Amino acid sequence: MSDTETLSPLFNPGSIAIIGASNVPGKISNIIIESLKNAGFPGAIYPVNPHHEEVNGLKCYPTVAAIGHIADIAVFAMPADSVLNALKDASEHIRIAVVIGGGFGEMGKDGAELEREIKAVLKKKGIRGIGPNCMGIFDNISKTDTLFIPKDRLQRPKKGGLSIISQSGSFVVTALDELATEGVGVARVISYGNKADINESDCLDFLADDEHTTAVAIHMESVTDGRRFVEAAARCAARKPVLAVKVGKLGAGITAARSHTGAIAGRFEAYKAAFRKAGVIEIDGYEDFIAGCKAFGMNKYALGNRVMIITDGGGMGVTIADACHSAGLVVPALTNWAADEIKALVPKYFAVGNPLDLTGSVTDEMYVDTIEKTMNGDSFDIAIIAALWGPPGLTDNLVKLVGDKADKLFDKPLIICSPGGEFAKKKAKLFRRRGMPVFQTPEAAVRAASILARVAKRP
Amino acid sequence: MSDTETLSPLFNPGSIAIIGASNVPGKISNIIIESLKNAGFPGAIYPVNPHHEEVNGLKCYPTVAAIGHIADIAVFAMPADSVLNALKDASEHIRIAVVIGGGFGEMGKDGAELEREIKAVLKKKGIRGIGPNCMGIFDNISKTDTLFIPKDRLQRPKKGGLSIISQSGSFVVTALDELATEGVGVARVISYGNKADINESDCLDFLADDEHTTAVAIHMESVTDGRRFVEAAARCAARKPVLAVKVGKLGAGITAARSHTGAIAGRFEAYKAAFRKAGVIEIDGYEDFIAGCKAFGMNKYALGNRVMIITDGGGMGVTIADACHSAGLVVPALTNWAADEIKALVPKYFAVGNPLDLTGSVTDEMYVDTIEKTMNGDSFDIAIIAALWGPPGLTDNLVKLVGDKADKLFDKPLIICSPGGEFAKKKAKLFRRRGMPVFQTPEAAVRAASILARVAKRP
Repeated sequence: MSDTETLSPLFNPGSIAIIGASNVPGKISNIIIESLKNAGFPGAIYPVNPHHEEVNGLKCYPTVAAIGHIADIAVFAMPADSVLNALKDASEHIRIAVVIGGGFGEMGKDGAELEREIKAVLKKKGIRGIGPNCMGIFDNISKTDTLFIPKDRLQRPKKGGLSIISQSGSFVVTALDELATEGVGVARVISYGNKADINESDCLDFLADDEHTTAVAIHMESVTDGRRFVEAAARCAARKPVLAVKVGKLGAGITAARSHTGAIAGRFEAYKAAFRKAGVIEIDGYEDFIAGCKAFGMNKYALGNRVMIITDGGGMGVTIADACHSAGLVVPALTNWAADEIKALVPKYFAVGNPLDLTGSVTDEMYVDTIEKTMNGDSFDIAIIAALWGPPGLTDNLVKLVGDKADKLFDKPLIICSPGGEFAKKKAKLFRRRGMPVFQTPEAAVRAASILARVAKRP
Repeated sequence: MSDTETLSPLFNPGSIAIIGASNVPGKISNIIIESLKNAGFPGAIYPVNPHHEEVNGLKCYPTVAAIGHIADIAVFAMPADSVLNALKDASEHIRIAVVIGGGFGEMGKDGAELEREIKAVLKKKGIRGIGPNCMGIFDNISKTDTLFIPKDRLQRPKKGGLSIISQSGSFVVTALDELATEGVGVARVISYGNKADINESDCLDFLADDEHTTAVAIHMESVTDGRRFVEAAARCAARKPVLAVKVGKLGAGITAARSHTGAIAGRFEAYKAAFRKAGVIEIDGYEDFIAGCKAFGMNKYALGNRVMIITDGGGMGVTIADACHSAGLVVPALTNWAADEIKALVPKYFAVGNPLDLTGSVTDEMYVDTIEKTMNGDSFDIAIIAALWGPPGLTDNLVKLVGDKADKLFDKPLIICSPGGEFAKKKAKLFRRRGMPVFQTPEAAVRAASILARVAKRP
């Protein structure tokens, strides 16, 4: 079997065994079984624990062997020092081992030795492994969820086209929680931790061919094999946009990344070069990661970097224009034609330009009419709409009107910027419910626009 | 009278006349009277309109002269082309004119001519003026509020020590709305618009001596008199921290700033030099402005730039460390003493360092105990606490415990970073209610830390 074929049970499991299943609510193994049920996992769930007959209402097996079938995935939910024996016991009866707990390579010499032994078992038995020291997988296609945080503390995003791979579990679950709130859909999420076996390149190889994945976001602390990464990333990026944030770049970060996933964070310049070579869009930190995921979650890409800014707050328009400039985006002047068309629509004392300031006299219709006049035609690639809700002429109907207009702007992303307090946050929710990407600050909106423009410029 | 003395009625008005008062709810003049009542303005409010006997339950006067007293402030809430005559009529009976509407210097030749005539009347009659093209003032000390947006659409911040001056009305009201949600208190806010009379330097002169103001944030598009600005800003910055964002720096921004408040945005390098000379902390854009206001709103300043990062998510810690490094902050290693003290407190498999990863085994007590061990002593100046709420050991009690600890850290700001979805946002609210500064992303927390560190380094 090819490497990618051996991964197939990970992304399309028919059965999942939970080794060390517990009836105690709040225990990791218990949460995972609940998560799988909540996700609507359609295959068989096999709790395994010699001390129980039943766990979470499911028949519990004393050993994996006792199940009588090969389990596609076995999740090892137990302390680090129990994993090796449990893996040996299960090794003839599973295809993929997911080792979620910490206490391995990231924790010094003893942990590293344990990790090496696990790796040896995986190799000898031909089992593929995720982890250790990871959150495992969250997959809206196969309806698999090994994230061991209950749903009240961690929302799961709806189904979408974006897939995410991350070395850090805490980073990716925090991002998923935020993306769920933002209404961004995801396809497959893999938190691979210390990568005793499956690494970033394995995941990219799979996602390159995955028809459910339309874009990929990577959060990494290290690369296992630079050459293989560039090959896999290039193959993936040739088919769908790929963005990557590399952390643990500098100073303190390096030390922290080393202890965190047992990886020595490589020199950053080498990563920059690798991303460039592979056509991967390099981004920086959590805010960029979220902005990129939200931008890609729209499933709508820009053709260039020319931004039209429409707002009812002049000062906010200038701030957005400044941020565009800093990000390398262009804010071109209106054509005479567009300016004349807009002047015919708005009171004569409006200063018509880009940014376009619709002032406190703004109405819902002015927004859509001016979006129409500026975004139809080929002068602009991306629109940033910063509706400030002070003026009485703005109503909830703005959301519907702008949303309908956005649907018609083929290949022209429309980004909402909604800064402010409670009122603005409520209106932001309406935009989100309408399926639009909403950002709380001018700079965040510009981050998303900038990433979209960089996708447009890919070779 | 000195210039500052002539401003005194602006900041401590005994009476306010609303010229062009209307009984129609939603009309600007009507909203202002409601705002003044909501603010608890203790002086006299005089609606002025020859067509009404009563407005909002208050006696309405046909002219300002008919009031029979000098009004400290007169707010002109009317279309641009009516302001000049109204100002002339009132000119013998008012001390400060606040002209809020647009349609002046920012709108081309005719508007500029109108603005010059208004300026001439102010000068001839010895009246001080705010605006035109502004939101006027919001003052928690004098309980004055001319912001013409109703309170359901725009929250007002509570009383605090931070004063804000802004050329742009939309920028400052959006920021105020957000600061209100964030629980940040403000003292005096002046939106001065086209500054036909009162400008940034006048405001800084007043705020330098104002005992209610402990810190100042400036949002500017242009400076009227560079030399005077440096003098006033230096005098203010010698007494309290002053931060400034200059917009309309570059490219499109310049054009937009010009049309927006009739100012020609000067070359940015000159501003940078002026800020440096005056000891003003230069910041960039909306996110920095909010981070700075939240940092200053704590009323607690750092002594240096050494950051301790405590989190229960290793990957998030690395991300914060990276952001610190990019911002010029230092993330020093733990001393052996502190590391040993912490090792005695946490499970032995923890990798103890900075960032400190308390892992999924975290408890409320671990946070406070490790804050205690790291922040007492002189190894660190600022703590960033990124509590991710996945682990079951974290409860609402964390907020109380961390809040109590923060109170005891004299001159050591403690910044909360709470990224994620609904659950994290709810917990962020608890921290805010406890009076702590909370940021939704690692980068935003670091922005605040960076500004605090720059205050520490002021000469």
